[in-house]
Amino acid sequence: MKKVLFATTALIATAGMAAAEVKISGYGRFGLDYNEANKTVVGRSDTNITSRFRLTFDASTETDGGVTVGGRIRAQAENRDGGQGAATFSSPQFHVAYGGLRVNVGNIWGAIDSAPGLYLNTTSVGTGIDGMGFNSLAIKGAGFDTFTSAGAGVGGIEAIYSAGGFTGHISFSQQNGGAVAGSADGLQRTAIMLNYSFGDYFVTGAYQSADNGRTITKGGVAGVEADDDLMFFAAGADFGQFGATLQYAQTEEADSVTLAGEAEIGAASTLIGWVNSTDIDNTVTVGQTVTDGTAFGINYEYDLGGGVTFVAGYVQTAAATNENSVQAGLHFSF
Amino acid sequence: MKKVLFATTALIATAGMAAAEVKISGYGRFGLDYNEANKTVVGRSDTNITSRFRLTFDASTETDGGVTVGGRIRAQAENRDGGQGAATFSSPQFHVAYGGLRVNVGNIWGAIDSAPGLYLNTTSVGTGIDGMGFNSLAIKGAGFDTFTSAGAGVGGIEAIYSAGGFTGHISFSQQNGGAVAGSADGLQRTAIMLNYSFGDYFVTGAYQSADNGRTITKGGVAGVEADDDLMFFAAGADFGQFGATLQYAQTEEADSVTLAGEAEIGAASTLIGWVNSTDIDNTVTVGQTVTDGTAFGINYEYDLGGGVTFVAGYVQTAAATNENSVQAGLHFSF
Amino acid sequence: MKKVLFATTALIATAGMAAAEVKISGYGRFGLDYNEANKTVVGRSDTNITSRFRLTFDASTETDGGVTVGGRIRAQAENRDGGQGAATFSSPQFHVAYGGLRVNVGNIWGAIDSAPGLYLNTTSVGTGIDGMGFNSLAIKGAGFDTFTSAGAGVGGIEAIYSAGGFTGHISFSQQNGGAVAGSADGLQRTAIMLNYSFGDYFVTGAYQSADNGRTITKGGVAGVEADDDLMFFAAGADFGQFGATLQYAQTEEADSVTLAGEAEIGAASTLIGWVNSTDIDNTVTVGQTVTDGTAFGINYEYDLGGGVTFVAGYVQTAAATNENSVQAGLHFSF
Repeated sequence: MKKVLFATTALIATAGMAAAEVKISGYGRFGLDYNEANKTVVGRSDTNITSRFRLTFDASTETDGGVTVGGRIRAQAENRDGGQGAATFSSPQFHVAYGGLRVNVGNIWGAIDSAPGLYLNTTSVGTGIDGMGFNSLAIKGAGFDTFTSAGAGVGGIEAIYSAGGFTGHISFSQQNGGAVAGSADGLQRTAIMLNYSFGDYFVTGAYQSADNGRTITKGGVAGVEADDDLMFFAAGADFGQFGATLQYAQTEEADSVTLAGEAEIGAASTLIGWVNSTDIDNTVTVGQTVTDGTAFGINYEYDLGGGVTFVAGYVQTAAATNENSVQAGLHFSF
Repeated sequence: MKKVLFATTALIATAGMAAAEVKISGYGRFGLDYNEANKTVVGRSDTNITSRFRLTFDASTETDGGVTVGGRIRAQAENRDGGQGAATFSSPQFHVAYGGLRVNVGNIWGAIDSAPGLYLNTTSVGTGIDGMGFNSLAIKGAGFDTFTSAGAGVGGIEAIYSAGGFTGHISFSQQNGGAVAGSADGLQRTAIMLNYSFGDYFVTGAYQSADNGRTITKGGVAGVEADDDLMFFAAGADFGQFGATLQYAQTEEADSVTLAGEAEIGAASTLIGWVNSTDIDNTVTVGQTVTDGTAFGINYEYDLGGGVTFVAGYVQTAAATNENSVQAGLHFSF
Repeated sequence: MKKVLFATTALIATAGMAAAEVKISGYGRFGLDYNEANKTVVGRSDTNITSRFRLTFDASTETDGGVTVGGRIRAQAENRDGGQGAATFSSPQFHVAYGGLRVNVGNIWGAIDSAPGLYLNTTSVGTGIDGMGFNSLAIKGAGFDTFTSAGAGVGGIEAIYSAGGFTGHISFSQQNGGAVAGSADGLQRTAIMLNYSFGDYFVTGAYQSADNGRTITKGGVAGVEADDDLMFFAAGADFGQFGATLQYAQTEEADSVTLAGEAEIGAASTLIGWVNSTDIDNTVTVGQTVTDGTAFGINYEYDLGGGVTFVAGYVQTAAATNENSVQAGLHFSF
C-alpha cells in the first residue's frame, strides 16, 4: 500500500558555498476509460484514452539558521474523453519551513484537500487511472482549495504544524472577483483541519467557511446562499494487510458518508472497495447539484516494479442512468 | 553522416529500490533565411532570422519483468519570417516496450513520418536550417501523423516491431471533429510502414488510409473526396562516403519522385543534393493544392565538433515565381 | 553586495565524445506589497502578495575550435496586485562566443538594459522584492530592449566585446509592425553602450535611436515624434563597505538624474538609498507620460545563507498622491 515517489535530483556543490537544489519529478499514466456518461454527448465515443503527464520542478534551500525556503511549479498535460491537450505550467507555491511548521504561499494545498481519509489510498487517490470522478469523496456539492497543477490556481496562504502524531492545518485563499485582480469580492475560503494518528489508527476533523456566490431555494425560501461551508470527519485503521476508513461530510446541499476497505493480496496486489451513501437536503428545491443515492467502486493495483503500477477500477455512480465506468492502465512515477 | 544526439541524464538511485530516470535533451538552431516567397506578403522582408529551441523531457523506467514504460513531452519555440514566438509544451507520448516491440500512445510518431527514405539524411531532415519547406518529400498534397513538438497533437496509438533488418510500423490516430472532443467524425488516419535493411541497402513501403474531409472536382465530377490516402516507396544505398535514396509517392492529387545523393567530403563535410519531379493529376480541376514541375535543392553541412553543425542550403521550388530560397546557420544538440 | 546565482548542472560525458550541457537555474521570491497606488483601482486591496518563480534552461557547448555555442529559454510566473498567474515560457536567446566577443540572436539583452549603473546593486536590481516600479532608473518615458522572461520578446541581434576593463555593446531589434510578422514598419531600436572599469571606479555611456510611433505636441507644434531616442551616462565607485553611483539620462520627454549610495552593515546586511530628480520638458504639452519631481527609496537586505535573502524596501514616487509603497519578503536563488 506504500506509494513511493521517485525524485530525480540534480545536486550542486559550489565548493565551500551554500548549496541550492532543484528536483524534477513527476509521473505519467495512460489507459482506457469506458464511461457510459459519455453517451450523453452526441458523437462522443463511450470508450476513450485517458492520460496525464506531470513534471514537478521543486527548488529548495536552507538558510544558515536551518530554515527551509523553497518553491514548486508544475507542468501538466491532461487528455480524456477524446480530447488531446498540450501541457501548461501551474502557478507557483512558495514555502518556509522550520521544525514541525511549514507555511505555504501562492498555489496552496488547502486544509480540506489535505485531510487524511478524504482520498483513497490508491495511485490516483481515487478509483482507476484518473480518479473516475472521485465519487468516493464524502464532500458533495462544495468546492475547496487544492494545488492547481496546470494553469493559474488560487492565491492563498496556509500553515501546517506537525508534532508527534498531531497535525494541524489552516488555510486561507482569495480568488479574483471578476475583472479586478485582488478584488475583495472574490471567492474567499478559510479552512482548518486537525488530524491525530496513534498506532494503527487516525482521526480527522475539518471545517471550511466559504461563500461561493451561488444562491439556492431552500425550505421554500428563494435566494438562500449556497455557501461552500462544510464539515468533514474521518477515522481509519491500517493493520498492514487490511485497512478501513470511514468519512462523513456535511455541506449546504447534502450529508454523505463513505466506507472504504483495503486488502493487500500477495506481495504486489492491493484491492480497495468503497461505498458512498449521499442524502441530499430535500428542502433545497432549486440549485441542488448533488445526486441522492448510493455509489460504489473498486480499485485493483499491481506493483510491476520500477515505479510502474497496473491500475484497474470500476465505479457505479448514484446517477439514475449512465452510471457505470471502467478503467485500466499503467502509472509510472519518476 | 552520423547524427549524435547528446542527452543530459540525471539519474537517481534510491538505495536498493527501483530506479526511474528523467532526461533533458534538445537542440537549438539559428540562421539567416532568404526566401523570395516572403515578397508575396506586403511589408515583410525577404531575409529573416529563422530559429528554433527545443527541450525534450523523457521519463523512462523498467518493470521487474523487463518491460520499459515511459513518456515524453516537449517544449519548443519557433521563429521565422520575422515573427518571434515563445515556447509552448506539446502533448505527451507514452510508451511500453519489450524486446523488439514498442507501443506508443498519445502524441504518436506516425507510420508514414517514420518511413526511412522520406526525409533527407541532414540535420534538419530537410534542406538548410529549418527544412526550407521540406520540398524534397515525394508525398505531395496529403497530410500524415507526426509528433507535434509544440501545442496539442493528434491522439493516436501505434506499434513498432523490429527484428533483424526488418521494421514494421502501424499507426492509428483520431482528431477532434469540431466542437465535440472524441467525436467519431474527426479526421482518422490509419497507416502501415514496412522497412527492410540489408547490408548497405534498404527498401521501404508504406500506405495510409485517411479521410481529410476535403472535396475536389476530379474528372469532371464535383464533390469527389480528396482523401489523404497515399502510397510511398523508397530504396537507398549507403556506401560510407557516398549514398543515394530514391522515393516515390502517390496521393489523390499527384505522383511524385525524389532522387537524393550524398557525399562526405573530407573529415567533417557532407553534401546532399536532391531533385523532385511532381506530376499532378490533371483531372483534378478544382481543389488541387500541388504544383506541377521540378524542384531541387542542395544542403551542405560541416561538423564543428561539440555537437555544433554549420548548415547551409539552397532550394528552388516548382513554383512559377519566387522559387528561390537560401539559408545558412548553426545547429547545436544537447 | 555580491550576488551568487547557484546553477544546477546535469553534465554528461559520452565516453570520448563531445560533451553538451544543460543547466537549470532560477529563483523564487515572495513577500508583501503595500502600494497606495492600488487604491486607484476600485475594489483592489492596497496590500497584496507579490511573487515570482523563474526557471532558466541554459544549453551550451563548445566547438573543436573553441567557439562557445548555446541557447537559453525561461519559464516564469509573476503574481502581484492580487492576480495569480501560471508560468509561461519565453522566446529563446542564442549565442556564439569566442574570446571576449559574444553575439546574441533572438530574445536579446539590449545594450541600454545592460548598462552598468542603470540598475541598483540589489537582489531585485530595483527596490524591494519586485523592483517596486524601478523608479530609481534615470531613463524616463522611453522604452528599451530587455530579455523577456515570459512570453514572446523582441527579435534582435547584439554584440558584446570585453577586453581588460572595457566593454562595448551594440544591439539592434525589430518588433512586428502589426499584423504582418517581419514587417519593416515595426518598432526598431538601435543602441550602443560603452563601459570602462578601473580599480574601484567605472564610467558608462549609452545611446539609443528608436522610433516608438507615438506623436506628441512639443513647443506648440502638434504631431512631433516622441522617439525613444535617449542618452545615458553613469559613473560609480565601490570601496568595499561603501559605494555610490550617479546616473543621468535624457529622453524626448525629460532629463533625470539619480544618486544611489550603498553601505554594508556588519557581515550580512546591505543598505542602499537612492534619490531621483526628474525635470520634464515643459514644452511637451500633449503626450507627456513622465511625472516631474523627486522620488526616493531605500532597500535593506540581509543574507540568510543558502542563497536566501531577506529584502525590504520603501519607495516614494514623484506622483502628487498615492506615492508611498513598502515591501518585505524573501528571495532564494537556485
